[in-house]
Order: sequence, then C-alpha cells, then structure tokens
Amino acid sequence: MEKQRFSVTYSITTETSTEKEARHKAFDICVEQTVEFPYELITDTFIREEVVGRFEAFKRDAKDKRRFIVEISYHNHTVGKELSQFLNVLFGNTSLKPGIKIESIRLSGALAGYFKGPRFGISGVKKLTGSRSAPLLCSAIKPMGQSPRELASLAEKFALGCVDIIKDDHGLSDQPFAPFKARIAAVSEAVRNAVKKTGKKTLYAPNVTADTTDEVMARARFAKKSGASALVISGALAGFGTVRRLSTDKSLNLPVLLHPAFTGSFTAHSESGISHFALFGQLARICGADISIFPNFGGRFSFSKEACKAVMAGCKTPMHSIKPALPGPGGGMSVESMREMKKFYGSDAVFLIGGGLFRHKDGITGSCREVRERLG
Amino acid sequence: MEKQRFSVTYSITTETSTEKEARHKAFDICVEQTVEFPYELITDTFIREEVVGRFEAFKRDAKDKRRFIVEISYHNHTVGKELSQFLNVLFGNTSLKPGIKIESIRLSGALAGYFKGPRFGISGVKKLTGSRSAPLLCSAIKPMGQSPRELASLAEKFALGCVDIIKDDHGLSDQPFAPFKARIAAVSEAVRNAVKKTGKKTLYAPNVTADTTDEVMARARFAKKSGASALVISGALAGFGTVRRLSTDKSLNLPVLLHPAFTGSFTAHSESGISHFALFGQLARICGADISIFPNFGGRFSFSKEACKAVMAGCKTPMHSIKPALPGPGGGMSVESMREMKKFYGSDAVFLIGGGLFRHKDGITGSCREVRERLG
Repeated sequence: MEKQRFSVTYSITTETSTEKEARHKAFDICVEQTVEFPYELITDTFIREEVVGRFEAFKRDAKDKRRFIVEISYHNHTVGKELSQFLNVLFGNTSLKPGIKIESIRLSGALAGYFKGPRFGISGVKKLTGSRSAPLLCSAIKPMGQSPRELASLAEKFALGCVDIIKDDHGLSDQPFAPFKARIAAVSEAVRNAVKKTGKKTLYAPNVTADTTDEVMARARFAKKSGASALVISGALAGFGTVRRLSTDKSLNLPVLLHPAFTGSFTAHSESGISHFALFGQLARICGADISIFPNFGGRFSFSKEACKAVMAGCKTPMHSIKPALPGPGGGMSVESMREMKKFYGSDAVFLIGGGLFRHKDGITGSCREVRERLG
Repeated sequence: MEKQRFSVTYSITTETSTEKEARHKAFDICVEQTVEFPYELITDTFIREEVVGRFEAFKRDAKDKRRFIVEISYHNHTVGKELSQFLNVLFGNTSLKPGIKIESIRLSGALAGYFKGPRFGISGVKKLTGSRSAPLLCSAIKPMGQSPRELASLAEKFALGCVDIIKDDHGLSDQPFAPFKARIAAVSEAVRNAVKKTGKKTLYAPNVTADTTDEVMARARFAKKSGASALVISGALAGFGTVRRLSTDKSLNLPVLLHPAFTGSFTAHSESGISHFALFGQLARICGADISIFPNFGGRFSFSKEACKAVMAGCKTPMHSIKPALPGPGGGMSVESMREMKKFYGSDAVFLIGGGLFRHKDGITGSCREVRERLG
C-alpha cells in the first residue's frame, strides 16, 4: 500500500454467499465513504483513481461462507488532519448499511503522526504509579448522590489501601449532589493527605466529560490545579476529538482513561458495527487513551473472553508511532478473581474493581490491600 | 410521574420469556444507569428512593412474548444540566448490555428548558426558505476531491434551479483539495450571485463538523460571515453537546441540519440500541436539530418504511417547549419518486436528492426545476 494511503478491513456479510454480491457491496463502500456520488459520472482521473476507496485485498472468510473480508484503502487527503473526518471516512454513512463491520485499521505513518495517540502509554502510566510489575488496581468513587465529603472519605480509604488509580465513577459529572469543583477539590485533598501517609503513588482521575471541548478543558485544568493526576472521559459522550484534544494538551500532561459509555451499540451486532479490537483497542489509542476501559467477561456485562482478548490485542498492536495503551477491564472483578484475571490479562493491564471491594470483611482499605497482595 | 423526573421506555428482550427475568434486567438498568453500586449496600434513603431509577410502567410486548416494555424514571438531578450526562443516564453503560433498546424518551419540563431544542423548527425553517407549503428540496455539493471553484459552480447550478437548501456533502471538511475557508468563501459567493438572479430564498449550509467545539464554532462564524445561511454537522463525529452549542448560539442564529454519519450502529440491531423514533427524532431535536437527516427507504440504505415513519413521528411528537423538526430523508430519492415521497412524508419534510439530479436530460438546473414542479 502506498505511503499516502491508510486502510480499513471490513467484513461483509452477504445474503447470497456470492463473491459477486460481496464485491458489489465492497465497491459501494469505496464510493460511499469518499465521493458519495455516481461513480460513472465522475470524469476527473485523480478523483476516480485516488479519492475513491481502493481494493487492497479480498477473500472469503474461512469459517463463514456468507462472509467476506475486504481491505479498502483511502488517500490521507480524504481525512485532512482531523479525527472526526477520519471516523467519517472509516464508517460514516456505511455504519447505516447492514452487514458491514470494521474489523481492523491500518494507519498510515502520516495519520499516526497527526493523531499522536496516548502521551504516556503502558510504560508511562506504569512509571507514574511507581513502576510495579503487577497489573494496576483502579477503584471508582460512587454512588452518585453522595456529597463531596462522602466521596472524599471513600477516596481516602482507597488511597490508604494503596490502589494505583482512584477514578470518579463516569456517572459523576456536575450534579447538585456534588458540583464538579467542590467534589474535585474535596477528593483531591483527601487523596493527597492519604498519599502522604502511605508514600504510594496513587493517581486520582476525575471525570471531565462535559458538553463542549472548552468545558472539558476548563474542568481538566481545574482538576490539575486541585491536584488530580489523571483524567477520565467518555468519548462517545464528549466527542472523540475532544478526547484527543485532552490527551495532546501539553500544559495538562496527564494520562487519560477512556470510558466506553454509550459505545455499546458499536459492538452489539456480530455482522455490523466495529470490532472490539478496532473500537476499544485501535480507535481508543488513536483518540489518545492511555487506559482503555471496557466491560470484562464473566461479570454483569456480556463480553466474551474472546472479545476481551481482542481488546487487549488492539491495545498493543503496532501502529507506527502510536504507543500501546493499557487495557482496563471492569465489571465482574472480585477480590477472589484477581489471580485468574492476572493470568488472563498479564501484568500490562489495569483492573477496575468496584462493588467487590465493598463486600470484604476487613472493610475497603483491607480489601484493597488484599487485592494488591493477590496481584503480586 | 413527578415533575422533577424524566423517563425512558426501554424494550427488554429476555432469554426465558419470563416476567422474573425482565424485572431483574429492568432493575439492573435502574441501578446501572445511576449509582452503579450494589443496591443492598446503599443506606442513604434519598439515594435509594430518588437517585436510583424507578419503575413507572412494566408490560409484556403484545407481539413478542420474549419482549417486555419498561418505563424507568430518573431524577433531573442525575443529569444536572448537561446533554452529555443526559445521554449517559439514558444509555451509558446499559448500551454495553445485550437485549436492551431505548424505545422513547419522556422529558421533564425542566430538562426541555435546559436543552432548548431547535431554534427554528419546522415553521422557522419554512419561513427562511420562503414559506412555500410544499416539502423543501435540498441538494448536496460533491464529490470530495473537487476544487472550491468546481464545487461553487455546482452550487450555482442548484441555486439557479431554485432548490431550497444547498448543503455541503458531509464528507467535505478541511481537505487539501478544498480547504474549508476557500471552499466556503467560493460557494457562498456563487450562491449569493445566483440568488440575485432567481429571487428565491435558497439557503447554503456548509459542513462545520470538526474535532473540537471551538473549531466547530470558529468555522460556523466564518461561514456566517461569508454569507452561509444554515449549517450541517454530524453529531456522532463532532459530539452531541457541540451540536447543541451550535444550535443555541445567539450570535450565529442559523438553522442546523443534523447528519447521521457514524450513528448507524445504534439502529442496526432490532433488540439493542436506540429506536429510529428516539434517535433520529427525539434525540436529534434535543441536540438542537432543525432538520434531522436520515436514510430514506427504498434507496441504497436499508431503512424500512416503518422506520422512516417512526423518524417522522419522533420529529414531531410533543416534548414540552421543544419545537418539532423537519425530517430530512436522503438516499433513493429520484426526480420520478418525488410525488410518492410527498404522499409518504407530507409537506413538512426536506427531501435530500443527490445523484438523481445529475442523471437528468436537462442538466442540473433543469432537473431541480422539474423536481420543484412535481413537489407542487
């Protein structure tokens, strides 16, 4: 593939199981995602040959004869330098057609350079949390409805239990129970005080998801000033370009945890949408996630072990200059399952454990300590 | 339902067809979308009774015994005043669970007041385009790859054909072929000159989709200064809160066409995601869309007639102070199908016709005139 092109591998599920139907649908993608115009009416050679998407590979799926795997490349110029337009070329209108799914993305070096990806990546986040070789432990303060003081008290217990990262529940935003500034100030102070006692590098990641990029950035700046040392954001709610803006801001310089809220429909259909590998792995990194949060297998969500393995692979697959990110499985994590989880995910992961910690006989601080011990 | 609460009606598809399973899943939604915390461990009465979602109605679907329809209400305070957090409460984590779909939304008066909805709505847009009683005709300039001058020349032909709205194709952003400012300046000028000749109020709507809210607003301001009279934005690409920001900005004061790019996965699965009624109708309006663009039936997309009817209904269903929006079906529109489309959608609609216009024997301007004649 030429340097000025990037590519997307789609799976196409046909009705007739014929190569003819698959090639027809694939050509439709080439046109729909770029010119969106009757191909036969285009006279300009550059547009016909360079702008319209181009077949790079085509094969029938080995396991499912209705399914075909097609790699289509696009010119970097179709994207300009914008993440929003990149997502549009990948899947804008085609998302509205049935039986087409993004399986993986092959970036060009130029696009990787524009998008930048995570600032810290796996090794950067590990360093910030004290370079322990074990998986990182992350807990969320909640429930929604508590006051800043109550949430701060819970954060203190987590910090005294030496968790690696304390995050806001993604449902804590700017609500009357606990307005953003009062909440962040109280929790930051509690974590700071606890850290003085433990000497452990515990990060605090407030949720900065908001309606506009400027509001997200204002909250992030306030959070940093208050002592926060990481940030959580839900990309589908705040906008994916806003995540990138947050991640690449030099004066902030904080690791970003990307939350998957409102993205479930992309992976709900086996023949449509975006694969776990591409969505929670590759695209999360392209947006700038240092940690990609996703639903763990075996818990209250429905992700399979295979899907979780795919996320892990997408978090680590080479993409030019874009660093690998830490997979952050959450849901279905218990104190008891920590060793099994470590076996499955390895040490380059962040385990989000919530409800499980509250049910422990020794209280929250005790259960955090026990989890860390089990993680080795 | 109390004034300080709003509600969401979900359909829940069960595996066992039992009311027990459905009630269990429904209660999970009440908890997951708010406190995300073991309910039995919550001691605070306000949180248990007000913050956790509440059953308002529950029934088995009349046509499908596996399916149950559940209305769950949430306290306004769970949302604060933010659209991003509203979407999060509606479907954040629950989007990641199988067999749950948003069917419809019942806003509270307070939330309707915060969100505001479309500034112009159906009657406002009709007035801007000359108060004709027929459906409005909208054409898009494309293909991607053309220069500003080529695109301007096409816009001129559309304007001379007296279309109501000329929009940028949603794939035109800020690319080397036609950088945003040069493109908008050239097209605006061409439309202005043509309008002087026709005397017809033709609106020009540039695509202002970009990575950050500030960039979207900067492009919108530049567009307005250049003479643009409406705006197009893809909400899933730019962020839904950014659409609201654009729509509510007083100094801009321009109608907003919301494009559905990248939203297809929400409606791809019959048992999961968001209904056509809620997504392209209600939520589009809550974001501030004056015109909600969506894939028409019978064209290259796969929407059924029933789905298109549901969009229409969602665009017009009462929602407190939020105005109705114009449904904007696109795809599968031809010069020949205009009368059928008018019969189906009525006069309060915008018909997006693209490729069809280019195939006409009398050229583009002639075909635009013929379409307007057929629309009555």
